[in-house]
Amino acid sequence: MSQAHAYVRNYFGRFREQLDDLLRIPSVSTALEHVGDVQQAADWLADDLRQMGMTRVETFATSGHPIVYAEWLGARPGAPTVLIYGHYDVQPAVLSDGWRSDPFEPTEREGFLYARGASDDKGQIFAHLKAAEAMLASGGPPVNLKFLIEGEEEIGSVHLGDFVKANRDLLRADVCVISDSGMPTPDQPSLVYALRGLVTMEVEVHGPAVDLHSGTYGGAVHNPAQAIAEIIAKLHDETGRIAVPGFYNDVLPLTDDERAELRRSAWNLEDWKKVTGATQPWGEPEFAIHERTGARPTLEINGIAGGYYEHGFKTVLPARAWAKISCRLVANQDPDRIGKLVEAFILSVAPPTVRCEVRVKRGAPPAFVDINTPAMKAAIRAYEKGWGRKPIFMREGGSIPVVADFQKELHLPVILMGFGLNDDGAHSPDEHFSIEMFRKGIDTAIYFCEEISASV
Amino acid sequence: MSQAHAYVRNYFGRFREQLDDLLRIPSVSTALEHVGDVQQAADWLADDLRQMGMTRVETFATSGHPIVYAEWLGARPGAPTVLIYGHYDVQPAVLSDGWRSDPFEPTEREGFLYARGASDDKGQIFAHLKAAEAMLASGGPPVNLKFLIEGEEEIGSVHLGDFVKANRDLLRADVCVISDSGMPTPDQPSLVYALRGLVTMEVEVHGPAVDLHSGTYGGAVHNPAQAIAEIIAKLHDETGRIAVPGFYNDVLPLTDDERAELRRSAWNLEDWKKVTGATQPWGEPEFAIHERTGARPTLEINGIAGGYYEHGFKTVLPARAWAKISCRLVANQDPDRIGKLVEAFILSVAPPTVRCEVRVKRGAPPAFVDINTPAMKAAIRAYEKGWGRKPIFMREGGSIPVVADFQKELHLPVILMGFGLNDDGAHSPDEHFSIEMFRKGIDTAIYFCEEISASV
Repeated sequence: MSQAHAYVRNYFGRFREQLDDLLRIPSVSTALEHVGDVQQAADWLADDLRQMGMTRVETFATSGHPIVYAEWLGARPGAPTVLIYGHYDVQPAVLSDGWRSDPFEPTEREGFLYARGASDDKGQIFAHLKAAEAMLASGGPPVNLKFLIEGEEEIGSVHLGDFVKANRDLLRADVCVISDSGMPTPDQPSLVYALRGLVTMEVEVHGPAVDLHSGTYGGAVHNPAQAIAEIIAKLHDETGRIAVPGFYNDVLPLTDDERAELRRSAWNLEDWKKVTGATQPWGEPEFAIHERTGARPTLEINGIAGGYYEHGFKTVLPARAWAKISCRLVANQDPDRIGKLVEAFILSVAPPTVRCEVRVKRGAPPAFVDINTPAMKAAIRAYEKGWGRKPIFMREGGSIPVVADFQKELHLPVILMGFGLNDDGAHSPDEHFSIEMFRKGIDTAIYFCEEISASV
Repeated sequence: MSQAHAYVRNYFGRFREQLDDLLRIPSVSTALEHVGDVQQAADWLADDLRQMGMTRVETFATSGHPIVYAEWLGARPGAPTVLIYGHYDVQPAVLSDGWRSDPFEPTEREGFLYARGASDDKGQIFAHLKAAEAMLASGGPPVNLKFLIEGEEEIGSVHLGDFVKANRDLLRADVCVISDSGMPTPDQPSLVYALRGLVTMEVEVHGPAVDLHSGTYGGAVHNPAQAIAEIIAKLHDETGRIAVPGFYNDVLPLTDDERAELRRSAWNLEDWKKVTGATQPWGEPEFAIHERTGARPTLEINGIAGGYYEHGFKTVLPARAWAKISCRLVANQDPDRIGKLVEAFILSVAPPTVRCEVRVKRGAPPAFVDINTPAMKAAIRAYEKGWGRKPIFMREGGSIPVVADFQKELHLPVILMGFGLNDDGAHSPDEHFSIEMFRKGIDTAIYFCEEISASV
């Protein structure tokens, strides 16, 4: 066991407590009332990076939430530089969403740590911080290290793309590592080679000027809650295929080899039912479940509202109704193009008896990673050492908006080295992170630095 | 001018201030947090009825909100008894719904009093209280008077039907007067001869056990917000006709004579657009606007919700979505039968990939009033005196659940003597009541007692 790995063993109890502290900060990036908490999480990380001996630590303000940058460039001449990306912001969470314990009071149950952000992504990025600390305390890492940790991943990495473009020199590296994904089971490590992109939009349907008495006016005014339902119902056909013309035009088809490799991360139907709680799968019939979520784009209704939907009844004919829609995209779909297609389709099916508005937000392109690079081979060996088993290659249905920017702006091979589990409950109530995976993640992050250093 | 009418002239300023006090009480019957306010409004009315000299005033508790009863039976032998019904509960209202002033701080602007309940129904029932006070202070009313004022009209008069059945003797009368409707213009009084019934239901669609990450699972789980939209979209056909089989089976068709009379209260299209703010009418093409709202049943989405619909984005695949639906019914539709038909249809179109629940609430039948009774003729004369113009007959799209109970249990002719205006904004922000109509209403209520006394 190397000195760095021994350090992890000795101080793992403290690492675990530090993670609790980080998870207690409700750094919800989408909520205006949490702006101060998001800043606090950035400062907390910067402090920890300073204390462990990173030589330059800086918090960059943006017009949104801050970006934490840290570097240590003391490796042997010619050693490669590893850029580690993660995010410290989290999805919204309140106890009443169905959590068994307060989402911002980390609670351990049966080897898992329950808290919002435990897996996505505080726990996973923190594994890299503690790997760095262990190497810095053990004679220094065998590679140069750069950390880039943002606070806007859950709202589409709004300002990170511009930051990357403006700081190409600062971020220069030989490989980028991102741990913000899951593996199918605790024993089967995996490397993700494709991520879905994302484009979001708000749809708003306006009817009467104000909420009307549904008795006095009902029957002669098109009800916006009904109209938005009629619009949404037209977005998919009966089979679950998206009905927007041209939506699938740019989708890269799956090859036979790829389908065979992906079958290794296929869901067992009973497991899938247990994890989702859904009665049966839904979606494009010609694709398996893992293909529908990994290799096919979607159009999802994230929220819908209109009229009176609280306890009791209010017999109104509502003035407006609205929906929040997101499309997950796959290579080679372009978020701007898809946003325009969906907007145009919605406006074309909106009836003339209401007024319909669509507001498309800035999107993030899908990412697709070459699996035959030396960096990827180093990652495979790191997992073999950390997990005792060769990783499989899989596609991930979620999005990490910045991956495409790293590829395009920094020309970096990106390694998606997930330490989470597919059923960690990211974005759901009772999100959790396996404490054993946290430990193995720290070890594997160290092995990766050793392997990539040896291979260059 | 009779002594009672002179009293109204002398004390109208105080009546107006008392109405402000009543409107300040936020007696929202559907909201649990307003239970105490609803009770306070009942007590306030009971106190006023006592002070004016009603000989028996009682507040009956129910398992919901209380019922206020008051009587004065001192008229000449053989004089008829008039039962006056109204309600002191109101629809929910908060400033942020779009009110120009606090809905529970009555504000006068350009001859109108703005407050929740100003027209529906505190202002209208209060006109009868002040008519009674004026007659009691002027030698006594020419008829016996009974008041029945409930606090659950806006939630479907849940307990009033049973109260009426259990108190037939107490409520024995010769005619029932209800002022809880509007007229087309301030100069054209009207008598309503048909009210729509109501049946409400909640529809809930369950998908995954908890909100899921829309990236990780989206594309393979049927989204409940999408599924409920798909269900709702099937409830009407393209023309606006309700698609539930059998829904229209029991509807009494309009006769040619009735259509001709109803044309007198037809909307002018430009006025209708101004009042509703809708871009154009919607609904069954073979019926005029006033027929769609008065003589045809509806199925209305009063509210819809699911997922994350607040500020910002949360890319969830929601666990559930729900809608609140109400059907307005016309003679001779039965609320139970219609509730069952709609429930069965919704369950039949709900896809097997989600679980759908429908909870039908207790309904209220539509009401249809004979326009050829002596009581109706007395009402016509009362309006001629109060307004200087003969009233027209019209249908009202709203519901007063208890009318059918009065007809069935008490065998009473019911006179729907509205003092409001169609565009008073009942159930909407900026609800208001014309102060001039309030005054004329008090006068007309006195004339009605005089006319009905003379006719018997």
